[in-house]
Amino acid sequence: MNQHIGKQSIKFKNPPSIVETASIVGKKEGEGPLYKYFDNILDDDYWGEDTWEKAESKLQKEAAKLVMRKSNIYDTDIEYILGGDLINQCVGANYAMSGFDCSFFGLYGACSTMAESLSLGAIITSGGFAKHTLCITSSHFCTAEKQFRYPLEYGGQRTPTSQWTVTASGCAILSNEGNGPYITHITTGKIVDMGISDINNMGAAMAPAAADTLITHFNDTGMKPTDYDLILTGDLGVVGSDILCDILNQNGYDIYTQHKDAGKMIFDIDKQDVHAGGSGCGCCASVFAGYVFKELKKNSLNRVLVMATGALMNPMTVQQGSTIPGIAHAVSISNKTEL
Amino acid sequence: MNQHIGKQSIKFKNPPSIVETASIVGKKEGEGPLYKYFDNILDDDYWGEDTWEKAESKLQKEAAKLVMRKSNIYDTDIEYILGGDLINQCVGANYAMSGFDCSFFGLYGACSTMAESLSLGAIITSGGFAKHTLCITSSHFCTAEKQFRYPLEYGGQRTPTSQWTVTASGCAILSNEGNGPYITHITTGKIVDMGISDINNMGAAMAPAAADTLITHFNDTGMKPTDYDLILTGDLGVVGSDILCDILNQNGYDIYTQHKDAGKMIFDIDKQDVHAGGSGCGCCASVFAGYVFKELKKNSLNRVLVMATGALMNPMTVQQGSTIPGIAHAVSISNKTEL
Repeated sequence: MNQHIGKQSIKFKNPPSIVETASIVGKKEGEGPLYKYFDNILDDDYWGEDTWEKAESKLQKEAAKLVMRKSNIYDTDIEYILGGDLINQCVGANYAMSGFDCSFFGLYGACSTMAESLSLGAIITSGGFAKHTLCITSSHFCTAEKQFRYPLEYGGQRTPTSQWTVTASGCAILSNEGNGPYITHITTGKIVDMGISDINNMGAAMAPAAADTLITHFNDTGMKPTDYDLILTGDLGVVGSDILCDILNQNGYDIYTQHKDAGKMIFDIDKQDVHAGGSGCGCCASVFAGYVFKELKKNSLNRVLVMATGALMNPMTVQQGSTIPGIAHAVSISNKTEL
Repeated sequence: MNQHIGKQSIKFKNPPSIVETASIVGKKEGEGPLYKYFDNILDDDYWGEDTWEKAESKLQKEAAKLVMRKSNIYDTDIEYILGGDLINQCVGANYAMSGFDCSFFGLYGACSTMAESLSLGAIITSGGFAKHTLCITSSHFCTAEKQFRYPLEYGGQRTPTSQWTVTASGCAILSNEGNGPYITHITTGKIVDMGISDINNMGAAMAPAAADTLITHFNDTGMKPTDYDLILTGDLGVVGSDILCDILNQNGYDIYTQHKDAGKMIFDIDKQDVHAGGSGCGCCASVFAGYVFKELKKNSLNRVLVMATGALMNPMTVQQGSTIPGIAHAVSISNKTEL
C-alpha cells in the first residue's frame, strides 16, 4: 500500500481529519489583526508563573487541555502527543506534556515544528497506528529573546530584518474518523543551506527551503498555486516572503495572489513595531489553529497549504562561523478528501 | 487496519526490516569491552574539525554515509531521515543531515532519541509511507559536558552517580522489504516525573519511566521477560539499572537475567573511571547498531527489546527548581516476524 507520490510527498489513502484546534496567545498577539480567531488571550507574559519558561509550558499545557475540552476527546482517547518548542532541549513541551496519559514523541524543527507535528501525526493516524493524535507547539517572546539574542533588560537594538517571536501555543487533534477538514497530502522538506549567516535575517535563511519544498509539492502532487485558496507560510516575515515569491516566480509559479505569511498576518507590521514580522513555532501554529481552521470550518477557505519553515542553527554555531540551514514542511488541508 | 494493541503499543502487521546499521565511536569507547563491534573508532575527539560541535556533526554524517555504503542503499532511495542529538536546537543532526537528498524529521527525546527514531521510522516504513528510512543519533562527551555541566578546562569533580556521555553515533536503515531482523512491536513512553531533581543522578530520574514503559510493554503485548534474550536499556547506568530491576521485581517481573544496560556495557566501569557508566543518545545507538544488530545477525541473539531512556530537563529548568521528567521508548526486535 504505497502512499508515496514522488520521493518527498505522501497522498493519504485515508486522509485524517482535523477534529478540533485550540490557540492561546500573548497580549501583543491579542492586539493584532487576528485577535478574534484566538481562543484565549493572556494579560501578561508570566501568566502567574515565576519564570517565562514555566509560562511557556503552561501555554502548551492549557492549549492541550483546551483542545480536549472543545473536542470532548481527552488524553485517555489520544494515543500520541507530538510536540516541541524552541527552548533548549524542548523543555516547553516536555514539562507541559508531563501528566497526560499519552505516549509522547518529542520533535525539533525550529519554527517548522507545527507542520512536522501535523505531518507525523497524519502518518500515524492515517496508517491505523492511532485513533487520535495531538499535535502541538509553542513559542514565547521572552524565552526566545533571552536564549537566542540578548537579555531583555539589555534593550538591544533590533535590525530591520529581525522578526518578533510570537508568544503563543497552537494545537490540533487528528482523527482517523471525522468530517474534515482533512490532511490530504504532505510534502516533507530536506535541509537546505544557501550560505546565509545573518542571525538577524531568518526569513532570508528559510526562504530557499520554503521554495524547495513548495516547488517539490507542486511537482509531486500535480497541484498548482490556483488549486489553493491560501498558501500559508510560517514564518518568513516581510523579507523572506518576498524572496519566496520571487524564487517561485523565477521557476514558473505565480503565488503572489495565494501566498500569505503567518508572521505578517499576526501583527500589524506598521503599528506594532515588529520590524519584519512575527516568528517562532507558536506563530504558524496559532494562525493555523485560529485563522486557518476556523475559516475552513466556515467554508470561506476550502483548500489551504500550511508550510512552516525552520532555521536549524543555534547561536553558538553561528558564532562558530557556520551558516544557517533551513527546512520547510508542507501540509495540504482541504474540506474535501479528493481534489 | 488498527495496529494498536493497548494504548501505548503497536504490533506491526508488516514488520519493517533493519537492513543495516553503522556505528562510529570515540577513542575511550574504542578502549571499552565492545570495541570489536564498532565500525570505526576515532583517534581524537575533534576528528579534524575545529570545534567539538562540528566533530559531533561529522560523526553523524559519516555514520550515515557508512550505513549507506554498507547497505548499498543511498540517500536517493531513502525517503526519510529521522534524527536528533543533545546539542541545543539539535544542531548535531541538523548540520549533519544537510546535503542528503532526503526529507528530514528532527527529533528530541534526550537519550531516548534512538528508540524514538526507530519507532517513528518503523511506523513510516510499515505503513507504506516509505521504502526506506534512516534512523540516527549521536552524542559527544565534550559537547555535552560544556553544555550540561562545566567547561572541560575547569576540571569539575564528578559525583559517584554521574554518568559519562559517550562519544558515538549509531544509525540504521529500515526497509519494508528484507530478511530481518524485524521491528515487530513498539511501546512508546509517556513522560514520567517522580520528583527527582539531582542533575548528577540521571539514572534515578529515568528509571521510573523505564519501568513504566517496560511494564506497559509486557501488559500490552502479552510477552514476558523470558521471551527476550536481552532487554537492553540505554542509559540507566549502575544506579538506574538497579532501580529498574527492583521496580520490575516489585511488580512481579524478574528481569535480572535478561537485563543489560548500554551504559554499563560500553565501558569497563571499574577501569575506565566513568563512575555510574555511559550515557548520551550515542550510547544506546552505538550499542544497538554495533553489538545488538551484529549478534542478531549471528543468531546468538534472537529477540531483543531495545529501550532507550531520556531525561527531559535542561540545566536552566533544574536551576529554576524544576524536577527531571523522564521518558522511555521500547522497540522489540526479532529475527522472526512472529513470536
